[in-house]
Amino acid sequence: MKLYSAPIEQLINQFAKLPGIGRKSAARLAFHVLSLPEGGAEQLANAILDARKLVTFCGCCQNLTDKELCDICAAETRDKSTVCVVAEPRDVAAFEKTREYRGVYHVLHGVLSPINRIGPDDLRVRELLARLESGVVKEVIMATNPDTEGDATALYIARLLKPLGVKVTRLAYGIPMGGHLEYADELTLLHALTGRREI
Amino acid sequence: MKLYSAPIEQLINQFAKLPGIGRKSAARLAFHVLSLPEGGAEQLANAILDARKLVTFCGCCQNLTDKELCDICAAETRDKSTVCVVAEPRDVAAFEKTREYRGVYHVLHGVLSPINRIGPDDLRVRELLARLESGVVKEVIMATNPDTEGDATALYIARLLKPLGVKVTRLAYGIPMGGHLEYADELTLLHALTGRREI
Repeated sequence: MKLYSAPIEQLINQFAKLPGIGRKSAARLAFHVLSLPEGGAEQLANAILDARKLVTFCGCCQNLTDKELCDICAAETRDKSTVCVVAEPRDVAAFEKTREYRGVYHVLHGVLSPINRIGPDDLRVRELLARLESGVVKEVIMATNPDTEGDATALYIARLLKPLGVKVTRLAYGIPMGGHLEYADELTLLHALTGRREI
Repeated sequence: MKLYSAPIEQLINQFAKLPGIGRKSAARLAFHVLSLPEGGAEQLANAILDARKLVTFCGCCQNLTDKELCDICAAETRDKSTVCVVAEPRDVAAFEKTREYRGVYHVLHGVLSPINRIGPDDLRVRELLARLESGVVKEVIMATNPDTEGDATALYIARLLKPLGVKVTRLAYGIPMGGHLEYADELTLLHALTGRREI
């Protein structure tokens, strides 16, 4: 005998497919959705359908947007000569939260990962090269995560860009603010040491 | 400037309303939904709409079902003389997983909670009383959680049922299987002691 009736089982299965949601959490979400007041479940379903229907890629930076050009690329106040290359749209949000960076972005939508069969053609590398042709871009900041795949992607793209005469930089890696030296791992400490600056 | 475009922001807001999902998890879910292959997002949205549309309450035990009578109430093999009263539909699933209980259920859809203004009229108590009128039910097992509200609900319903001549029992509370005495809290230990049985 099934534990739940078919439509509930189906909803739990769908929730359980989401990242970080197991069977138990999925059941909890399903029952929550069923207990929502009139229209609540429809709002969630419509938000999913709308987002899927309306959201496309920005023609310039490849970030997710519902316009032809995203707000950042369309803003006159942003410095178009500096491009920060990130792996995912949420990395753009992370930089925007600093409220300090005034350049623009380029979203790769992934990192090179031979083990998952993701090569340069699966990333938005071609679009990045096309952006550099106009000569407006002076500096490209590689801001992929400091892990094996992120480093490999940064290195690969840096090698592609160098011959074009554009300055390619990488984010600084070191002790995070508020972090303690005694708890920092060796690699972080090594990066902090080699990246030391005169004060 | 908004961090995400409007439809994405809207989707994140909707996910963030779900229990146990914060803004960061909601953003992760939203981007996952946007990255799903063709039709994936629609499947999730449709599962929500279908569940909401098809699922109603069982005419007998008030559990969630897509039929007039739920599978358990409709099954001829179940013992209709024993009713296990639980607070939520997921509690039914918990008992069913034991594969031992052969009686039927009654789902209250909540517990008495004066602080949240939930009184007896907000629970399916009236439906429980109506079930007892036929005289088929011989025993009612109160299986609400062993907390203040669960205990109060069990006590309240027990007092309502006693005059009807039906046997009212409560689940046994004590040390959980595999638990260690030294880690059990005082209240659990006290329950285990007062509920001791001859072997």
